[in-house]
Amino acid sequence: MKKITVLGGGTGTYVVLTGLKKYPLDLGVIVTMMDSGGSTGRLRDQLGVLPPGDLRQCLVALSEAPLLWRKLFLYRFERGDFKGHNFGNIFLSALEKVSSNYEEVLDTVNYVLKTKGQIIPVTFSQTQLCVKYESGKVIKGEGKIDQNNPEKTKIINAYLEPKVKVNQKAIERIINSDYIVIGPGDLYTSVIPILLVSDIRKALKKTKAKLIFIINLMTKSGQTNDYKVSDHFFDINKYLGRKVDLLVINNGKIDQDVINWYKEYNEKPVIDDMKENSSYTIVYDDLIDRRKIVLDKSEKIKRSILRHDSDKLAKVLVKLII
Amino acid sequence: MKKITVLGGGTGTYVVLTGLKKYPLDLGVIVTMMDSGGSTGRLRDQLGVLPPGDLRQCLVALSEAPLLWRKLFLYRFERGDFKGHNFGNIFLSALEKVSSNYEEVLDTVNYVLKTKGQIIPVTFSQTQLCVKYESGKVIKGEGKIDQNNPEKTKIINAYLEPKVKVNQKAIERIINSDYIVIGPGDLYTSVIPILLVSDIRKALKKTKAKLIFIINLMTKSGQTNDYKVSDHFFDINKYLGRKVDLLVINNGKIDQDVINWYKEYNEKPVIDDMKENSSYTIVYDDLIDRRKIVLDKSEKIKRSILRHDSDKLAKVLVKLII
Repeated sequence: MKKITVLGGGTGTYVVLTGLKKYPLDLGVIVTMMDSGGSTGRLRDQLGVLPPGDLRQCLVALSEAPLLWRKLFLYRFERGDFKGHNFGNIFLSALEKVSSNYEEVLDTVNYVLKTKGQIIPVTFSQTQLCVKYESGKVIKGEGKIDQNNPEKTKIINAYLEPKVKVNQKAIERIINSDYIVIGPGDLYTSVIPILLVSDIRKALKKTKAKLIFIINLMTKSGQTNDYKVSDHFFDINKYLGRKVDLLVINNGKIDQDVINWYKEYNEKPVIDDMKENSSYTIVYDDLIDRRKIVLDKSEKIKRSILRHDSDKLAKVLVKLII
Repeated sequence: MKKITVLGGGTGTYVVLTGLKKYPLDLGVIVTMMDSGGSTGRLRDQLGVLPPGDLRQCLVALSEAPLLWRKLFLYRFERGDFKGHNFGNIFLSALEKVSSNYEEVLDTVNYVLKTKGQIIPVTFSQTQLCVKYESGKVIKGEGKIDQNNPEKTKIINAYLEPKVKVNQKAIERIINSDYIVIGPGDLYTSVIPILLVSDIRKALKKTKAKLIFIINLMTKSGQTNDYKVSDHFFDINKYLGRKVDLLVINNGKIDQDVINWYKEYNEKPVIDDMKENSSYTIVYDDLIDRRKIVLDKSEKIKRSILRHDSDKLAKVLVKLII
């Protein structure tokens, strides 16, 4: 069975995992642990727990438990003391408080959610993502980089403060993988943070695995303003310390009303400016999820109304892999 | 196997169930659903869920899941948005929100906690406990009757507002039981509320089961001020609509420093003034839990620093039953 490892966190990773779990693959995910926004940020600050948000999404994506459990983990309180918190985040936080280590947290939650595949937090240490812009401005904290970030210049450096030790299981997984899938997801807040943890780059250089990079559908304010495909490609290679082998790019048409909706956030479709080249392969397909997404501006996860379709994306990936 | 059913909620019921679950009995508990204090009260008010507090304690008492799960369900947040809330309460509340009915909630939580025995909420409807005092004062809401209640006169009437339909499983359980264990626990806030639900009294009259009444160790401010054993006996019979068959009374000495601690709350040991009588049997034993309880005045559950010992109590009960 082919060993496939996804790097990320957030909605994009949820989509990839949901699609790939239907195939007979040895599936794993290395999860970013730098989220500091919303419910997760409050839990980090108030309880001193590791950020549960990205982990929760990966757990639910790979869960084969009855639907009720998945609904429970994604349930978001709308009123009262818990307003804005996901139950899954509260579960992981309380479990961390009563467990003797984070491995015990993972064992317990994997058991109850009957997850398929290996879920590996990239680190078990607290750290903050920081970015420096061309303008000289520095932002510390994933939440502040991710949400309502008006900065217009390019990010010239991303780093972690403090530096943290890697979870050794992530290194082993990378070394032994056949394919590593990067993205989709916010480039600087969901994908690159993983590459900033010590020894991850080393492992990525050492592995024989092919790297597959899934290009985002839309640019992201404060992170990838006006980025074309080549800009994504350039930045990811910089943090990988090597070149990706395969690019997966959507060529399906994006509806005009979706494009209009994103204008409010100064975000637009990522333009493809890549040329075929002997050092990498590009795969094109219509990858857009055509289902209507109900808008709810209060919920961060719904901020991306345009998404990859998990089945279409998985089909393309599996064709590359098998 | 003898069918034993405990009526109650709160710490007293937790103690009885913890002791009895070690014996080969067909064990069940009918749980009061009128709690409105603390974490439970806030969840009821803010989310419109059924009160989870008493149910949670019964679930944990009958759980045979690994210790970590029981610790998780009893875990109480000490800081932040969740301050004062038990994880178990949050779990039950979120689960109620995503479930199609309360039976599904119970199935799910019984599964994860691997509970032994049958746990039966007395009703699935929202209601408030109300009491009227000799002074004419009326208090509505279990939480207000239970905590820091300075009322000195006797309760002359307890009732539910609104009246609620009984969970039919409670009726069946009562009818088919061999023994029904009442108490220990706060007489008017943990025990009598169950007897106020329609048809429970009828079932208690109809059943062939013997009724065992475990007398509390201490009086309770605002509920059983200055009550002796005979006062407890009189009041419970009034709400039962029949007489209890067996009384279990502690005759172990209560430490003076414990008595002093309760003085602050105007509470004192329940004095035994009963005489042997052909219509009921009295069993005496030293039933006191001699372990030191760590005081934490912020936590409601620790308000009773004197408790029955679950093993001693179970031993006495099993001798009566088998």
